[in-house]
Amino acid sequence: MIILKLGGSVITRKEADKPTINHENLKRITREVAESTHQKLIVVHGAGSFGHPLAKKYAIGDEIQDNLDLKKKMLGFSLTQHAVKELNGIVSEYLRMHGTLSVSIQPSSFILTKNKRIKSADLTLIKRYLELGFVPVIYGDVVLDADESIEMAVLSGDQIVKYLAEKLKPERVILATDVDGIYDKNPKKYPDAQLIETVSSLEQIETGEETNIDVTGGMGGKVSELLGLLDLEIESEIINANKTGNIKKALNGEKVTGTTIKR
Amino acid sequence: MIILKLGGSVITRKEADKPTINHENLKRITREVAESTHQKLIVVHGAGSFGHPLAKKYAIGDEIQDNLDLKKKMLGFSLTQHAVKELNGIVSEYLRMHGTLSVSIQPSSFILTKNKRIKSADLTLIKRYLELGFVPVIYGDVVLDADESIEMAVLSGDQIVKYLAEKLKPERVILATDVDGIYDKNPKKYPDAQLIETVSSLEQIETGEETNIDVTGGMGGKVSELLGLLDLEIESEIINANKTGNIKKALNGEKVTGTTIKR
Repeated sequence: MIILKLGGSVITRKEADKPTINHENLKRITREVAESTHQKLIVVHGAGSFGHPLAKKYAIGDEIQDNLDLKKKMLGFSLTQHAVKELNGIVSEYLRMHGTLSVSIQPSSFILTKNKRIKSADLTLIKRYLELGFVPVIYGDVVLDADESIEMAVLSGDQIVKYLAEKLKPERVILATDVDGIYDKNPKKYPDAQLIETVSSLEQIETGEETNIDVTGGMGGKVSELLGLLDLEIESEIINANKTGNIKKALNGEKVTGTTIKR
Repeated sequence: MIILKLGGSVITRKEADKPTINHENLKRITREVAESTHQKLIVVHGAGSFGHPLAKKYAIGDEIQDNLDLKKKMLGFSLTQHAVKELNGIVSEYLRMHGTLSVSIQPSSFILTKNKRIKSADLTLIKRYLELGFVPVIYGDVVLDADESIEMAVLSGDQIVKYLAEKLKPERVILATDVDGIYDKNPKKYPDAQLIETVSSLEQIETGEETNIDVTGGMGGKVSELLGLLDLEIESEIINANKTGNIKKALNGEKVTGTTIKR
């Protein structure tokens, strides 16, 4: 079984201030998925411009100040849940259009976090969908949190990837992003930045020059989720989904330029 | 707590051969919900023209003949799940537009049936959403079935109503339909048909002339789900949501013309 994460920056226009699909990418990527020879597959996708601006605006996951603030955050929750569900519908539809038997899985219907980390999530149905031959499509969402000071949290697609990988022990985890992988310096600033082909610890990438890691999220969050999987002997790859053919090759088990997280 | 079921024939154009919203009804009904003085509320809605034509076309819930038939049904499952989810998004959005803090709950993410009856469904999150002040909006969907001869089933909003009522013990259950209630004869054929104000058994309505009950679904299915609740001392009302003000009155606890299911 393979877990394929499609980054929000790949399937949406992340810089847009309102929800905007990257149709061109989504069409190509879902065709590559359909054309690959993978067996069982779970697709996890990020929220991109469908989730982040709203979650940020309503400060979901921040401490609740008073009842008015609670109501405001609840409205934000309702709006964000709706928007990311819409994105999920579009991703599932593109997959189906190319012949993949996609099934949507809504995190906020069955996942509870505690201090923003998944506390409980029954994966029985996801396993059954997989066994039957469906491709479950799950995504970054807003969820209830057991911590009463926040009540609600943003659950990233990356955290879902880690949780699913821990519980379901996939053969491979592929993170499709909008860059080739992790660099030793920020490649947007330094033309001589080198791609790091193998990462086995956070220290390894934090000790260098300014990299393309930002620890508040983005690549830093991804890498730390993936490093957590090494204890379970699960390796993962970060690849560039903006390059035609990469997703198909990676799903087929072919070598793709990128960063591998392994010991 | 109140469980309000919005029939598929009320919120969609059920006779349409493709998914068609009844915007006029939905707008009015969701405004009535917002204007009522109810405390905790769960909204359950049917699938109407978003679900039934597809589920029927792909014979979901019928015995699987062979692998080709399985694949066909899986495609039907994927398509139906998508369509009813879209309807749910529209209902939730209308509710939110009028000030109700709606949260979508997707049955196929956490409910498993066995022989088409709910086998397991963890309601922890629905309870938490209610406690916080959200209005969970759940709906008729396609779900996985533990019976291997069918693998998939259609889960009606009516069955969900019964399950939620058994587990959550609401004060009231209101079924909003497109007729006033149960008649002693088919009111579309017999102008002298009389509304039955109280029903306490299936026999009571099956022994009369031809009624507006059809046992393969429709009103018959609803009544038999609701009669099952009498063992738990939960009474329910069938009302006509096409009549302006009925939903608001019923939510407020005022008397509305209709059929009450009680001992």
